Amino acid sequence: MVSNLPSLDKLIHELSKLPGIGNKTAGRLAYHILKSPEHFAHELSEAVEQVKRNVRECSHCYSYTETEEQCMYCTDPKRSNDVLCVVEDPSDISRIESSGAFRGRYHVLHGALSPLDGVTPQDLKIDPLIQKIRESQTGDECITEVILALDADLEGDTTVLYLAKILGEMGVNTTRIAHGVPIGGDIDYIDFRTLGRAIENRVQL
Amino acid sequence: MVSNLPSLDKLIHELSKLPGIGNKTAGRLAYHILKSPEHFAHELSEAVEQVKRNVRECSHCYSYTETEEQCMYCTDPKRSNDVLCVVEDPSDISRIESSGAFRGRYHVLHGALSPLDGVTPQDLKIDPLIQKIRESQTGDECITEVILALDADLEGDTTVLYLAKILGEMGVNTTRIAHGVPIGGDIDYIDFRTLGRAIENRVQL
Repeated sequence: MVSNLPSLDKLIHELSKLPGIGNKTAGRLAYHILKSPEHFAHELSEAVEQVKRNVRECSHCYSYTETEEQCMYCTDPKRSNDVLCVVEDPSDISRIESSGAFRGRYHVLHGALSPLDGVTPQDLKIDPLIQKIRESQTGDECITEVILALDADLEGDTTVLYLAKILGEMGVNTTRIAHGVPIGGDIDYIDFRTLGRAIENRVQL
Repeated sequence: MVSNLPSLDKLIHELSKLPGIGNKTAGRLAYHILKSPEHFAHELSEAVEQVKRNVRECSHCYSYTETEEQCMYCTDPKRSNDVLCVVEDPSDISRIESSGAFRGRYHVLHGALSPLDGVTPQDLKIDPLIQKIRESQTGDECITEVILALDADLEGDTTVLYLAKILGEMGVNTTRIAHGVPIGGDIDYIDFRTLGRAIENRVQL
């Protein structure tokens, strides 16, 4: 979409860099911003600047934190220290939190291994993870279980295999979240790989 | 989606005010902006501010213009003055321009009549339209045809009926763009109202 107005074209161009926003949607959004009251555009623009200015990585788990040096999950005294949940991205933490099924600590890898895209173990927060577990083993509060909550795709699987080997050698109990039929899922519409995994990992009743 | 980080939650909140962007998509976009390099967020935020600062309404057709008092369609000497195309929104102009089928002038109503939502003729740029046509009738360059390129919904239909009556009384030849089967459209999948209109407005071969 080209409007022939430099400022509008520039906004359409910037918006279309966002994931899932094509040129047509970017055009619709840009015209909406143009039509909206001044304060809306100003608040949106401020919010974009603020998020980059205020939010930074937690020095302990590499998730995001705003006011403190460490994030709310690392500083919460009510959470258990002996179970560590490893995720790919900080956004995965809110999802897991909303399930209410986990009350331990987190560790964010910031991606998954992908040799084809040139993502190696050095590009991820794997070394700090190993160091964190090693330190816990010599200290008072030992991490007894590491739960790998990585995506169920090729990159996630590669990372799980890589981490399971290293953590196994370190003598840590390593688990992976279950893959199977989603709740509310109809078996008719589930792909055969998921169904295969669901049968393989069936649960004793 | 709630991240528990005030700046991130604020950005998610602002983004979810955009049309077609739900809370989940807003979350995905906000995390993407957070992960992107500093300059991307800055350029996006600048583009939002700039568009509101630089773009204003054309004083003649009420479309948008950036550098000049009047827009590029009103000032282009190569465009014909005797045909006027009436549209609802400035974004409709880029669509019509990309068809290449129209080389006259434009007039933007900034909406369509909708008694249920309280949109009356006074809320639209209808008075300036009537004045523009009246002035042309007393001057040298008379507008001989007004093409109504309004949406094919209830509001568009209402506005077409309203304008056709007024313009008819002023003795202006008023037309409406054709409604029918879209190019590439399969008759199997066209709704019965569109098909009815296509048959009604059939063209002599």
